[in-house]
Amino acid sequence: MKERRDTYNVNVGGVVIGSSEPVRIQSMTNTPTEDSLATANQIKELTDAGSELVRVTVNNEISAKNIIRIREILYKSNYTVPIIGDFHYNAHTLLSAYPETAAALDKYRLNPGNIGGLNKFDDNFAQIIAIAIKNDKPVRIGGNWGSLSRQYLENTIVNGGKSADYESIIKEGLIDSVLKSAKYAEDLGLQSDKIILSCKVSSVSQLVDVYSEIATKCKYPLHLGLTEAGMGDNAVISSVAAISILLNEGIGDTIRVSLTPDKMGIRTKEVEVCKDILSSLNLKQFKPKVISCPGCGRTSSNYFIDLTKDINKHIDNNMLEWKSKYIGVENINIAVMGCIVNGPGESKHANIGISLPGTNESPSAPVFIDGEKVTTLKGDHIRDDFIKLVEEYISKKYKKVS
Amino acid sequence: MKERRDTYNVNVGGVVIGSSEPVRIQSMTNTPTEDSLATANQIKELTDAGSELVRVTVNNEISAKNIIRIREILYKSNYTVPIIGDFHYNAHTLLSAYPETAAALDKYRLNPGNIGGLNKFDDNFAQIIAIAIKNDKPVRIGGNWGSLSRQYLENTIVNGGKSADYESIIKEGLIDSVLKSAKYAEDLGLQSDKIILSCKVSSVSQLVDVYSEIATKCKYPLHLGLTEAGMGDNAVISSVAAISILLNEGIGDTIRVSLTPDKMGIRTKEVEVCKDILSSLNLKQFKPKVISCPGCGRTSSNYFIDLTKDINKHIDNNMLEWKSKYIGVENINIAVMGCIVNGPGESKHANIGISLPGTNESPSAPVFIDGEKVTTLKGDHIRDDFIKLVEEYISKKYKKVS
Repeated sequence: MKERRDTYNVNVGGVVIGSSEPVRIQSMTNTPTEDSLATANQIKELTDAGSELVRVTVNNEISAKNIIRIREILYKSNYTVPIIGDFHYNAHTLLSAYPETAAALDKYRLNPGNIGGLNKFDDNFAQIIAIAIKNDKPVRIGGNWGSLSRQYLENTIVNGGKSADYESIIKEGLIDSVLKSAKYAEDLGLQSDKIILSCKVSSVSQLVDVYSEIATKCKYPLHLGLTEAGMGDNAVISSVAAISILLNEGIGDTIRVSLTPDKMGIRTKEVEVCKDILSSLNLKQFKPKVISCPGCGRTSSNYFIDLTKDINKHIDNNMLEWKSKYIGVENINIAVMGCIVNGPGESKHANIGISLPGTNESPSAPVFIDGEKVTTLKGDHIRDDFIKLVEEYISKKYKKVS
Repeated sequence: MKERRDTYNVNVGGVVIGSSEPVRIQSMTNTPTEDSLATANQIKELTDAGSELVRVTVNNEISAKNIIRIREILYKSNYTVPIIGDFHYNAHTLLSAYPETAAALDKYRLNPGNIGGLNKFDDNFAQIIAIAIKNDKPVRIGGNWGSLSRQYLENTIVNGGKSADYESIIKEGLIDSVLKSAKYAEDLGLQSDKIILSCKVSSVSQLVDVYSEIATKCKYPLHLGLTEAGMGDNAVISSVAAISILLNEGIGDTIRVSLTPDKMGIRTKEVEVCKDILSSLNLKQFKPKVISCPGCGRTSSNYFIDLTKDINKHIDNNMLEWKSKYIGVENINIAVMGCIVNGPGESKHANIGISLPGTNESPSAPVFIDGEKVTTLKGDHIRDDFIKLVEEYISKKYKKVS
């Protein structure tokens, strides 16, 4: 993995985004912001799932007013997660008309493609930036290839004399519009470390291209994600591919995985995917890793699959309690292997690993702790015995929270 | 994406693996090879799902004999997918004792970690390579960090005077053992273009390290995958991260995603994940892409989610028929968007896209075809009308199979 690209550090309501900090996970509500309670509840759910910042749409007057109420509900339940207002078309109007909302939000997300078109962009944008400066708030200048204004493209790229294929025009236009808006914000007096950028497209290869380019052109932290990934496994896989490739290049300071959910109101899956990406890349651990082999014709029984399931379930059921009791327990690696080929070897690499017998192998299961074989389990209680060994290992290995 | 790393091209039973060819998808059965019918049926399933090569364990005499029977069953049903024999410990014995099996398999997968230890490795390996040469078969020399022999490591690395941490020793040992085995195979007379390598580990960052290094040290095609990813979403995400990062670097010629399945006998998920990786990276399309937005507080109804689901379902139900009728139909892009922010823009980028109204937006849905607005749908039949437009588009856009 390449060294993280050096960026400014932007403080968003107490959560710092930038290269000196871990990559931050964020998500966005899909409840109507008009419904304060539903939105506050979803923000809690997302926070509990692991979202370090939450964005909500602020699309009309009721939504703008409700931000105050949502904040109150959250504070009452001791939720201090930073809230980002997502604005399109009417940011200048709403932030001017609702100064308390402007003060309550921790960041404004602005889309340069819909701040007022060519004639009104400068004035509207200046109005918003003045409010950000007054309230000491950061902004995300977030371009989407789905909302680049046609006027903008025609005037800045096509008529500017450059010629290229449609895709390149979109890409250049997206980067150009975001960087120009950031420069304008700085000219208006916003500090460099109050700006985060994003340039979202919906194809993996284009996202990698766009971010690789913009990464070399500025020091602003980058918000990373596909703009519209779609639904189901394919959407998860596209998002993981894009985000992993860029994080591996050291690019990206906060990530969001945009998934069409199975139904409205359900949202935590995107946070789970973010966590899995960060833990896969060893950027952060959230819970113990259970390594298990895929099984093959050598592992003809379901036993090792059932054991893997049971251990995963046991971890899920106990993780909250373990975390409250043991420091660093989320870093443990557990291996559950199905035959002799890689079983003992892989188990030795884990903190604690068990190598179950494959077909026709001797019906015993050696257990390895930190690389050394400590015992061999046999008989009907292998599962319970192994889970007990895991529990014992945790209680000995990790310091108790004092 | 970087240019593909230049490799030899290895013909595996008619499917060529190497840089002049698309990245090939492969998988491995988890039925006991002792059960010919179950194994043949699973090979059919994996092939139907999109696996271009299938590996089976050949772990004992019955399995070795059964390869012939499995081949017969497959040929009778017109399945000509290449079959790879996966050997550990007794490759030399089984391939010598069952010459018909040696002739029937399309590739032998060998694990240098368990070919006979320090004393017998050379003889056993030479015996296997002689059989490969006689039968004109390629081999995969596949190392796993779980099955590197301790003797080997101690003799070649530790006693060789290099000193490093445990992880580096494992990594160097893995690469070294695979490359030395390949060189020995060539010295024994096997052609360069009969060798494929793999160096599997179970952590994403280590896999990226190992493959980045071995890619610079040889011209053999590389088989890519985590050795033991585990179970569930986390396993999928680790595999996607590792394989995507490397493919984006131009490294990798055939991929396998090793997932612990939900139960034995189920296996096609790993092939689906491979397909999603290749399509995400624009390396190959398998079915139309449906881009849909994640929804937010602006898209308060479930309507756009239901429409996305219906379209995905419609594609799944019709793809086989479409593919049999229209050339290139798998390349179509469809967008289903939930509000005005990115809706029209994203829809314009698609071949055919619909932008549904968000909350408080006018209840009409413009449809875009190849970037131009062609109609606006309203009322109760938006779904059926849009699906009809998709069907019409396909029948006009794509040439009929003659």
